[in-house]
Amino acid sequence: MTENSTRAIGVAILGMGNVGTEVVRILTDNAADLTARVGAPMEIRGVAVRDLGKPRGIDPALLTDKPEDLVAREDVDIVVELMGGIDPPRMLIREALQSGKSVVTANKALLADYTGELATAAATAKVDLYFEAAVAGAIPVIRPLMQSLAGDTVTKVAGIVNGTTNFILSAMDADGSDYNETLAEAGRLGYAEADPTADVEGYDAAAKAAILASIAFHSRVTALNVYREGISNITAHDLASAKALDCTVKLLSICERIVAEDGTQRISARVYPALVPLEHPLAAVNGAFNAVVVEAENAGRLMFYGQGAGGAPTASAVLGDLVMAARNKVHGGRGPLESTYASLPIAPMGDVRTRYYVSMRVADKPGVLSTVAGEFSSRNISISTVRQEGAGEDARLVVVTHRAPDAALSETVAALEKMDSVLSVSSVLRLEGTNE
Amino acid sequence: MTENSTRAIGVAILGMGNVGTEVVRILTDNAADLTARVGAPMEIRGVAVRDLGKPRGIDPALLTDKPEDLVAREDVDIVVELMGGIDPPRMLIREALQSGKSVVTANKALLADYTGELATAAATAKVDLYFEAAVAGAIPVIRPLMQSLAGDTVTKVAGIVNGTTNFILSAMDADGSDYNETLAEAGRLGYAEADPTADVEGYDAAAKAAILASIAFHSRVTALNVYREGISNITAHDLASAKALDCTVKLLSICERIVAEDGTQRISARVYPALVPLEHPLAAVNGAFNAVVVEAENAGRLMFYGQGAGGAPTASAVLGDLVMAARNKVHGGRGPLESTYASLPIAPMGDVRTRYYVSMRVADKPGVLSTVAGEFSSRNISISTVRQEGAGEDARLVVVTHRAPDAALSETVAALEKMDSVLSVSSVLRLEGTNE
Repeated sequence: MTENSTRAIGVAILGMGNVGTEVVRILTDNAADLTARVGAPMEIRGVAVRDLGKPRGIDPALLTDKPEDLVAREDVDIVVELMGGIDPPRMLIREALQSGKSVVTANKALLADYTGELATAAATAKVDLYFEAAVAGAIPVIRPLMQSLAGDTVTKVAGIVNGTTNFILSAMDADGSDYNETLAEAGRLGYAEADPTADVEGYDAAAKAAILASIAFHSRVTALNVYREGISNITAHDLASAKALDCTVKLLSICERIVAEDGTQRISARVYPALVPLEHPLAAVNGAFNAVVVEAENAGRLMFYGQGAGGAPTASAVLGDLVMAARNKVHGGRGPLESTYASLPIAPMGDVRTRYYVSMRVADKPGVLSTVAGEFSSRNISISTVRQEGAGEDARLVVVTHRAPDAALSETVAALEKMDSVLSVSSVLRLEGTNE
Repeated sequence: MTENSTRAIGVAILGMGNVGTEVVRILTDNAADLTARVGAPMEIRGVAVRDLGKPRGIDPALLTDKPEDLVAREDVDIVVELMGGIDPPRMLIREALQSGKSVVTANKALLADYTGELATAAATAKVDLYFEAAVAGAIPVIRPLMQSLAGDTVTKVAGIVNGTTNFILSAMDADGSDYNETLAEAGRLGYAEADPTADVEGYDAAAKAAILASIAFHSRVTALNVYREGISNITAHDLASAKALDCTVKLLSICERIVAEDGTQRISARVYPALVPLEHPLAAVNGAFNAVVVEAENAGRLMFYGQGAGGAPTASAVLGDLVMAARNKVHGGRGPLESTYASLPIAPMGDVRTRYYVSMRVADKPGVLSTVAGEFSSRNISISTVRQEGAGEDARLVVVTHRAPDAALSETVAALEKMDSVLSVSSVLRLEGTNE
């Protein structure tokens, strides 16, 4: 297509759930504005749905339950994939790209594992593959990382990118409630799905961490490379202890560039619930909101904040990508694709230097503190604070360490669990967002 | 140039102050990474400086005091303008664009008035004109507004985009100090220039508001369209009063889409110091940091936070633009330019609905409150709170209104100033960031 063409840009939409419905609505309601921004009208050629019988409030002639036919149509220039899951989206997107169509997708699970294959197909066909909506909903994160920071060296990305777990942890922090009752409440309010595993066990956050790490460090990182712990073991007691330390608990997706003393670089990508000091900007991100902090050598610390989920906010991100892809179809050119030239290896979790918070029930007798402290110092781990809580049968020790290799910390915890004077290690959490 | 060309991309840098020096450093230090990201090496063809004699730590053969010759060189593909001021940058950028060179600039004063002319030249020559560094330093704001939100309808942009004034107001808030002594301190610490007028009188913030409003509302907005008040009249008493109302004072750049009942749309762009409630995200942005809150119909409220000034952070934004412009030179295509199709008119300040905080010294006698309240109600302005402070000669009334047209509010203040029972109106500030 040549510059100043006024031929309409044909759009195929795969999936009409919350996000798809909003995308169709905005394309219809804002058609005049969108046409002016693209330089040509965008026309919906069809919408692929699973159940043709369900009333959708759009022209039924647009609906199809054969997404592969829709993707194959010659009058489709851009495919918007909002079905979710690996198959059939993987195959549909690949076919779209191979036939010269640009693709916009919000499918984080697919991207976390198959960005490489899809980006190669897009590069070969010289078309766009955009996925701003896959991480942090309406918040621009992918484009700033790929484009605005293209001349900088990103050192760390740390984000709250899962609304369900942040809703649960915020509620537990606010009212001292239990994990299970809060999860049930989140389900009733529509913040947690019937099977909440992907959210509460950190799989969703890990997929997003893989996408963020790949872009930030110009390397291929997949979900399998991401160390992952969920929030289902977090207790009301953990939140209370966090509060006593002027912290709260957040499920963080962390991507870090680890530079060894000899200059060798590795990537750490990890997801776990961590203590975060109240003065850290991520501590104030509550409810279903998302935020991503990016640290770069020259830019310093940047924060991006907003709505990380929901039909309209996610549709906003999809539409931004769609307008850019359509603009490129009209004016030529295309946006940057995956860049993996750096090929940095993944550091195992054991090598990552973190801080630990360890809460344990101990025998209330002289010498316990010294024995416990000995387990840390024998592994060269420096203790930041020790707090003794309760007495008698309720005696507890709360230890916060300085930074040390995660393997040494977890070995120490294993050793503590075997000690006679330690009745049980009730909680182990990492501490993030401090300067020490 | 064709795809996969490995010819180097020639870069001319105009100006070698704080930002220019950092841009040269990063281009040199990160050459390998930048080459991988662009798809070809970027080579500095020359750096234009005012004083050739000053030692710069780079090959003196690269230096020139004739920027026009550098811009005219055939082996220059991209011009990075970091001189500041209107002339000669305006002419130099125009010539660069007209000869097919892409341009990256951080020149907010120039862009606030001449984006139209420059964007037209860029569109005609089919090259890029990027200026992420012109607003809020390292923080990606221009690209998210132009691209990520390209499919949404922005309703409001409100930002702290001037580091000098935010440093001064934060310090006054923290220690109760006076405006003049804080300004002097800011000068000593390098946060205020010898002539601080452009910062403290809001000219810098107004230029940035014009740029933001133009992009957010797809209309031409220049600095002259921006209503502007500076911070030089802000007193320690204002900060104390703000605190009593659970607020702080911030110099805000506000761009708002005003929709009348009949659907007619207008733009308001304005800069003034305003009370901001402590729970609003902008209230916590302190020191030389910047932050921009964007509200859009579908995305909801987004916030972008980071370092708004300084050599390295601003250079990070310049480099992001430079890599994108170079990438487009290698791969073809170009980024979006100014879009002014909406052509929304500017609403005069008097029509804008705001809230006022009015602090006045009053005669300590019965009936004063009722007479004062009468002046508000006669202009159909509803009062939110009235607080009486002190007694006798120090008697004060502090009135906070609900939203009303700014003209009616300022008329009321003028009337209050003429009342016998009002000894003086000591302070008038707008209140922003509330839902009422």
